[in-house]
Amino acid sequence: MSKQTRRQFLSAAGKTAAVAGVATLTGSAAMAEPPAEKVFVHHVYFWLHNPDSQEDKAKLIAGLQKLAKEAKTIKQHHIGTPSTTNRDVIDRSYQVSWLLFFKNKADQDVYQTDPAHLKFIEECSSVWKKVIVYDSEDI
Amino acid sequence: MSKQTRRQFLSAAGKTAAVAGVATLTGSAAMAEPPAEKVFVHHVYFWLHNPDSQEDKAKLIAGLQKLAKEAKTIKQHHIGTPSTTNRDVIDRSYQVSWLLFFKNKADQDVYQTDPAHLKFIEECSSVWKKVIVYDSEDI
Repeated sequence: MSKQTRRQFLSAAGKTAAVAGVATLTGSAAMAEPPAEKVFVHHVYFWLHNPDSQEDKAKLIAGLQKLAKEAKTIKQHHIGTPSTTNRDVIDRSYQVSWLLFFKNKADQDVYQTDPAHLKFIEECSSVWKKVIVYDSEDI
Repeated sequence: MSKQTRRQFLSAAGKTAAVAGVATLTGSAAMAEPPAEKVFVHHVYFWLHNPDSQEDKAKLIAGLQKLAKEAKTIKQHHIGTPSTTNRDVIDRSYQVSWLLFFKNKADQDVYQTDPAHLKFIEECSSVWKKVIVYDSEDI
């Protein structure tokens, strides 16, 4: 195989891998930009010191909305609160869910020290007493 | 306000609410179909009876991949395994993460009794000893 042919072959193989990655991420939904690497999912659940305080919850949510706009490497986000679903296996004791998709682990690592993230922690961490984080990557 | 004018006003207000919903879901990423209602996020973490069994893990993942193809109401899915990130707040004791987006709660309710979902539980539930589910909806 010539050097040129080999380069073309490797490029085509990379393209196939990227397309396979899209199928894993999006299921039946289409997304604008196919990821070339393992998608990184960062899911944080917040428990507040005052779980019934609408004011504290609103402060946290406003902080997250600001963070979603300002953090550079977030690809997709979802801010949620527990649904009304209620079965033995469901944990609905938290107050706020913060779900992030990153292109890859490197982008998540950047997020951890993004000034917008550090500012969010400084401004909002007084309202929560506990967080649990689940970080997962494409199989 | 005439009846006709009022109907137009309500319709316009509904449209604005739908657009706001999109912004919450997608952040900086664009999606093909804007949801008209509260997006429902269903995140399941699996702990296996034999956490080190690659065979059991592969069986569960294959079952989830089949389920992702066959379940009618799933809008977006992600199958993951714990990342190498390791801080006090991170729970990385589970073996497999199964994250689903639904258009709304009604679609998630349909999924719970979708024949493909029941078949998956029948075929794969022997490999897991514990699941924790977090269901959340748009703020």
